[in-house]
Amino acid sequence: MAQKFTTREEDYSKWYNEIVSRADLAEHSDVKGCMVIKPYGYAIWEKMKEVLDAKFKETGHSNAYFPVFIPKRLFEAEEKNAEGFAKECAVVTHYRLKGDPNEKGKLIVDPEAKLEEELIVRPTSEAIIWNTYKKWIQSYRDLPILINQWANVVRWEMRTRIFLRTAEFLWQEGHTAHQSKAEALEETEQMNTVYADFAEQFMAMPVIKGLKSDSERFAGAEETYCIEAMMQDGKALQAGTSHFLGQNFAKAFDVKFTDKDGKKDYVWATSWGVSTRLMGALIMTHSDDAGLVLPPKLAPIQVVAVPIYKTNEDLLAISERMNELAEKLRGKGISFKFDDDDNRRPGWKFAEYESKGVPVRLALGPRDLSNGKIEVARRDEKTKEVVDFEGVEAYIVNLLEEIQSNLLNKALDFREKNMRTIDSYEDFKERIDSEGGFFLAHWDGTEATEEKIKNETKATIRCIPFDREEEQGVCMVTGKPSAGRVVFAKSY
Amino acid sequence: MAQKFTTREEDYSKWYNEIVSRADLAEHSDVKGCMVIKPYGYAIWEKMKEVLDAKFKETGHSNAYFPVFIPKRLFEAEEKNAEGFAKECAVVTHYRLKGDPNEKGKLIVDPEAKLEEELIVRPTSEAIIWNTYKKWIQSYRDLPILINQWANVVRWEMRTRIFLRTAEFLWQEGHTAHQSKAEALEETEQMNTVYADFAEQFMAMPVIKGLKSDSERFAGAEETYCIEAMMQDGKALQAGTSHFLGQNFAKAFDVKFTDKDGKKDYVWATSWGVSTRLMGALIMTHSDDAGLVLPPKLAPIQVVAVPIYKTNEDLLAISERMNELAEKLRGKGISFKFDDDDNRRPGWKFAEYESKGVPVRLALGPRDLSNGKIEVARRDEKTKEVVDFEGVEAYIVNLLEEIQSNLLNKALDFREKNMRTIDSYEDFKERIDSEGGFFLAHWDGTEATEEKIKNETKATIRCIPFDREEEQGVCMVTGKPSAGRVVFAKSY
Repeated sequence: MAQKFTTREEDYSKWYNEIVSRADLAEHSDVKGCMVIKPYGYAIWEKMKEVLDAKFKETGHSNAYFPVFIPKRLFEAEEKNAEGFAKECAVVTHYRLKGDPNEKGKLIVDPEAKLEEELIVRPTSEAIIWNTYKKWIQSYRDLPILINQWANVVRWEMRTRIFLRTAEFLWQEGHTAHQSKAEALEETEQMNTVYADFAEQFMAMPVIKGLKSDSERFAGAEETYCIEAMMQDGKALQAGTSHFLGQNFAKAFDVKFTDKDGKKDYVWATSWGVSTRLMGALIMTHSDDAGLVLPPKLAPIQVVAVPIYKTNEDLLAISERMNELAEKLRGKGISFKFDDDDNRRPGWKFAEYESKGVPVRLALGPRDLSNGKIEVARRDEKTKEVVDFEGVEAYIVNLLEEIQSNLLNKALDFREKNMRTIDSYEDFKERIDSEGGFFLAHWDGTEATEEKIKNETKATIRCIPFDREEEQGVCMVTGKPSAGRVVFAKSY
Repeated sequence: MAQKFTTREEDYSKWYNEIVSRADLAEHSDVKGCMVIKPYGYAIWEKMKEVLDAKFKETGHSNAYFPVFIPKRLFEAEEKNAEGFAKECAVVTHYRLKGDPNEKGKLIVDPEAKLEEELIVRPTSEAIIWNTYKKWIQSYRDLPILINQWANVVRWEMRTRIFLRTAEFLWQEGHTAHQSKAEALEETEQMNTVYADFAEQFMAMPVIKGLKSDSERFAGAEETYCIEAMMQDGKALQAGTSHFLGQNFAKAFDVKFTDKDGKKDYVWATSWGVSTRLMGALIMTHSDDAGLVLPPKLAPIQVVAVPIYKTNEDLLAISERMNELAEKLRGKGISFKFDDDDNRRPGWKFAEYESKGVPVRLALGPRDLSNGKIEVARRDEKTKEVVDFEGVEAYIVNLLEEIQSNLLNKALDFREKNMRTIDSYEDFKERIDSEGGFFLAHWDGTEATEEKIKNETKATIRCIPFDREEEQGVCMVTGKPSAGRVVFAKSY
């Protein structure tokens, strides 16, 4: 009866695509590389946005909005940043279409409507924002500027995967301006920590906080802080980044401020972002072969109830109890859906909500009703229990909390089991393929060695963990001295 | 001492620009026609979004996200829609930049990265969405689809004004699919009513609900419903539109469904939107020569308190009372700011919050403190009172409600005074220039007459009001019969 779905074991990549499709999260559009985020997927993204937005505001940031287009001359002002993104830029060159003289009803680009200067569809907004901050900043009194923007960005990608790598994606980008290096560094770290806390407390996804190596740093940054999560195939996913931009953009756009002593200096900057990529991370952290698994704190529907009935009378009696329960649960801030759709059988509904990762599913039939019982199933462990209807709301509240922490613990256990300390490069090369996971290894700190490892194994340095033990060692490749282990992994 | 600002009387247009700038709402960017929405302006837009989004969800809609780009061949599928927007399309033709061989550090568009098919930056999303709905709709069971999208759109404009007419703007666009004409018409009306209720209840802006004439209809629609508001210069501003699209897009994209009887038919559609244009409407409905005036329900800061002090001891004592009050007000859901910035004098702060339209301003000094009093000033009437500190929170709650309704009543009065019933075209021509306002006049229903009036007076038919009296009359221009009066005005 049940349709056969691909398991993680069989084909991890196909499994991922099926989860996205079965849970009705998103799909490819007819625009190359761009996705359509469907209502259920978007509802999860909205939950993420809501929590993150509150965290940004708590830490003193305001939202604003800057243009989607960046004139080429502004885009190229910060050379490293421009160079880093030049190869993936969508470019607007014309501002008008006109009727095709050769084919009625068709349109062509009007050659007379060519822009004097091409516009880049923002791949990131440092350039347009720092060009604007220039007008806002004269003195230390104008600082700090703590602004965030929720927006779409475009980075032309040839090989795309829904949520993980798409030509257009949704994100937030924070852009702050400070009067001192120390303050900007503090902001960079604060926002990386905000991301880490969000990942752990809401996504139930443990992350490693750390520093990117030179070669993995954001184009135009002095330092990139990041959070790295382990997916169920052992690969790493960079889930958020926070950049200390130094004075690079201030210099590129000539943004100076007068300090309290009347001296002029360039302004210090940070930028930080997370994107719809987090949806991919969420999917790959918890989901199983039966479908999506969602942590309750980000589930659009936390509890679904399915009536089991034959007669209309039964349905009426069940509905009455369910409406009482709905009111109690909603009073506790729990999102609840009673699915009394008459066109679908209970078995179909069970499978549907399993695919969609609804954390708790209730089932109530006439016999339960007369016994004062109700069946409660949890998605994370796929177990169910029959409990007293009386007081079930308190049971559900506890269960949702338990599921949230259970998912985090399972993910932590998984990461623990797949975190490997390694000293031999031969072993490393063998095990990165056979076992996967994160490898803690010594590295001599050079780009050359990093490059060699990448070429030979496809693994990269995911980060230099902030909380690593200082441990004198020798690079597994060159034997040169190393002050501590870094995280190597294959990555998304 | 006070800077002299332009009054509405002196130069309405300049007054508007100054309000936008003094209240720190938005500014022109260095991207032609695109604006930067600054934090205070964006905070108002966020409030609007929050209320509207809740209203959309209450009426059964979900949010989703569709690509920012529309391939030209999809864009041109619905011919009238395509024709209507062709002249204002930003077109992406290339997907890569490369280093300029003639100038180090500069970039040029890579001629080898030309797209096979140009992409239009969405001016509206019917085309991409109906191309997607085609895959989602087979049977009546898949209907209705009730989706909304919050997004940026681009319509290339030569003459731009912040919020009112910009090349890029933010909006929401609802796109729904139905199995019957009646259901789609009901949706069209429902959403127009949602907009009208929002305008009146939250923006304190009265609107006329009505139907657009043929020439003012949305390109690709069968009918356009709208809400029209009167600005303080007597001009009309179209504040929201809701379109009955008939089967036009279903036919253009071949979207059919099987009904309960197994018969196939094209799907019926609606679309509806409001944009950051509402910010312009809000500004021009209430603001006065002293600055922005905001209805409390949309004010990012509803109450601001300014301490009047000389010594630190005074400030401490004032702060203590203000913190108590802050807690009480926030407990009632009122946003409160205590401005104890030591770098600014009270007079500067009073002017600042007046410019920014904060509905209620409190001032507390040592003498008030010892008398158990506090000064409460209201922005709408620019009056102030000294009241007992004890229980002032209840006073403030009432005052905010009073301000909200006072603003609506003032706007209603203004509209009433500037609504003119007219029968002679000679009078019309004279008075539309000398007095402005809305003119209720008979019209013969033809485009030719509408066109003549527009050419001769710059006035257009803003709408055929839904609640107009059926009144037999004769067209003021041609003398031909008319079944009722329509609203003529100059417009934004």
